[in-house]
Amino acid sequence: METLVLPTYADVAAAAERIKGHAHHTPVLTSRTANRTLGAEVFFKCENLQRMGAFKFRGAFNALAKFDERQRKAGVIAFSSGNHAQGIALSAALLGIPATIIMPHDAPAAKKAATAEYGGNVVIYDRYSEDREAIGRKLAEQHGYTLIPPYDHPDVIAGQGTAAKELFEEVGPLDALFVCLGGGGLLAGTALSTRALAPDCKLYGVEPEAGNDGQRSFRSGSIVHIDTPDTIADGAQTQHLGSYTFPIIRRDVNDIHTATDAELVDCMRFYAERMKMVVEPTGCLSFAAVRALKEQLKGQRVGVIVTGGNIDLARYAALLAG
Amino acid sequence: METLVLPTYADVAAAAERIKGHAHHTPVLTSRTANRTLGAEVFFKCENLQRMGAFKFRGAFNALAKFDERQRKAGVIAFSSGNHAQGIALSAALLGIPATIIMPHDAPAAKKAATAEYGGNVVIYDRYSEDREAIGRKLAEQHGYTLIPPYDHPDVIAGQGTAAKELFEEVGPLDALFVCLGGGGLLAGTALSTRALAPDCKLYGVEPEAGNDGQRSFRSGSIVHIDTPDTIADGAQTQHLGSYTFPIIRRDVNDIHTATDAELVDCMRFYAERMKMVVEPTGCLSFAAVRALKEQLKGQRVGVIVTGGNIDLARYAALLAG
Repeated sequence: METLVLPTYADVAAAAERIKGHAHHTPVLTSRTANRTLGAEVFFKCENLQRMGAFKFRGAFNALAKFDERQRKAGVIAFSSGNHAQGIALSAALLGIPATIIMPHDAPAAKKAATAEYGGNVVIYDRYSEDREAIGRKLAEQHGYTLIPPYDHPDVIAGQGTAAKELFEEVGPLDALFVCLGGGGLLAGTALSTRALAPDCKLYGVEPEAGNDGQRSFRSGSIVHIDTPDTIADGAQTQHLGSYTFPIIRRDVNDIHTATDAELVDCMRFYAERMKMVVEPTGCLSFAAVRALKEQLKGQRVGVIVTGGNIDLARYAALLAG
Repeated sequence: METLVLPTYADVAAAAERIKGHAHHTPVLTSRTANRTLGAEVFFKCENLQRMGAFKFRGAFNALAKFDERQRKAGVIAFSSGNHAQGIALSAALLGIPATIIMPHDAPAAKKAATAEYGGNVVIYDRYSEDREAIGRKLAEQHGYTLIPPYDHPDVIAGQGTAAKELFEEVGPLDALFVCLGGGGLLAGTALSTRALAPDCKLYGVEPEAGNDGQRSFRSGSIVHIDTPDTIADGAQTQHLGSYTFPIIRRDVNDIHTATDAELVDCMRFYAERMKMVVEPTGCLSFAAVRALKEQLKGQRVGVIVTGGNIDLARYAALLAG
C-alpha cells in the first residue's frame, strides 16, 4: 500500500507564488444587509469572480505548472462535473499543454461549451452508469496523459488553499470560516491555510443535505461512499471524499454542516439582489450554513468562500423567478 | 441670472477624502472573453458592487457630508427614479440626517423597498403627469429641507467623479472611457477626473437610443428637452441635461453614443454569464457602446463604468430568460 504524503501549508504558499499573475486576486466583498440581518461581520471571498468563474482555476493551474517536460508534451486528462474541467482546460491553454476533459452527459451546457471554447478535447460519459475515474485512468494509460483528478491530489489541494490564504491576509483573523465541499479539495486546502494563518478560527465544511457523505465520514472517522446525490448543487455531487482530502479534513476541520436545495435558492436570490453577483448553487452552500447557524455566530467575524458562478443562464433565470 | 460656479477636479479630490471609509473602493474586473472578442483590453469599474448597488452613493454621501448644522437638523429631500434615492437614504442614515425621498410610482419595487428600508420617508409621484422638481422644491420650502437633486449639483458631480479617479489610479491611463448618462452627473464628474488624470483619454457618454437628448444637446450646443423616454434603462429616463452637467460635458466629453434596449439585454446576459455580475439595464449602456464601436477600439485600453445592479429579481429573471 502506497504511503500518502499529505500537502502542508508550505505547498499552499508555493502554489500562491506559482499562480501569481495568472489567477485573479479576487475581491473580498461585504454586505451591510447581511451584517445587519445576522448580527455578525461577514467577509465574502468572491471566487465566482475568479478566472473561468470558479476557484478551481487555482488548483488546476498549480498542478499543471508543476508538470515536467514529458508531461507537458503528452498532455493532461481530467474528469469533472464542470468547473475543474474549465480550470484544467484554461490552465492547459495558458501553459500550452494539450488537454482532454471527461464530462458527465448532464453537466450544464455552459460548462461544456466553455470547456471546449478554452480548447479542451471534451469526452462525454454517463454520470449514472459509467465510472469516470476508470475512463480517465484508461485514456491516461493509453496516451501517456497525466491525470489530474478534481480534488484528490496534493497540488490541487495546495492550489485551492490559496483562496483562504488571500482572505486571511486581507481581512485578518476570523472567528469562523465556511467552505463548501464535494470531494473536499477546497476544504482541505482551506484547512491548511486556516491552521497556519488563523489557528483559532473555526472551520466548517458545508455540503448538500441530499449528499451528506462528507458529514458522515467526518463524524464516523472513515470515508463513506454514497450514490450520486440528487441536488441542484452540481459541483457537490461527488460520491465520497478522497484519500488526501479526508485525513486533512478529519484533522483540521471543526464540523461539517448541510444545506437544502431550497436554502441554496434563497441564498442565490440574496446574492443577486443584495450583492449583485451570480452565484451557482454549489457556491451558495457556505452562506446557507451561516444563515442557518445565525444564533451561534452573533458578534463574530465570519468568512464565506463564494466558490463559483457557472450556471446556465436559462436555469439561473428559472431559479431566480422561483 | 445666477452665475454657476462649475466644480473642478479639486472638488473631486476633496470628495474622495470625504467618502473614504464610507463608500466601497470597488474592484476593477477584467474578462478574458471580452478582451478576446473585442481585440482590446477592457477594464470594468464595478460600481454595481458599490454600497446600495450603484455609484450614486458617492455623490449623495459627498453632498450630505458637507451639510452645516442647520441643514443636518432640518433634513434632506431628494427626487429620484431609484438609485439616487437609495444613495441619499443610506447616506442620511449613516450621517444621522432625516431624509424625504420623492420617487416615481413606477420605480422598481426593489428600489422603493430598499429606500424605505434605509430609513427614508418615501413620497410617490406620477412620472408621466407630475413634475418631481416642483414637488421637491415645494416640500423643501415648507419644511426647510435641503434639496439634493440627482445630478445637477456640484457636490453630486464631484462625488460621482471619484469612481473614475479610482479607476485611473488603479489601472493607469486609458485610450477611451465609456460612461452612461441620464442627467449627466456621473459623466460630468468623470470628465473632471479624466481631464485631470488622463488628459489624452477619449471620453464617451452613452444613453438609450429612445432618449438621446444628451447626444442632441452635445452636438447642437444647447440643452434639448424630451418627454420621458420609453426604455428599459430606467436610470436614464431623464428628460434633459442639467445646468451644471451640460457645460462640463460639452467642454470635456468627446462624443455621446446611444444603445438600444436589445443591446442592453445582450450585455446584461454577458455580465451574468461571463462576469458573474448582476447589472441593471442602465449599467449596461457603457459596454453596449464598446461592443458597437469594436472596430475603432481594436488594440486599445478601454475603461467601462458599470454603474449599478439594482433591478427587481423577477424582471431580471425575465430579461435573462428572453
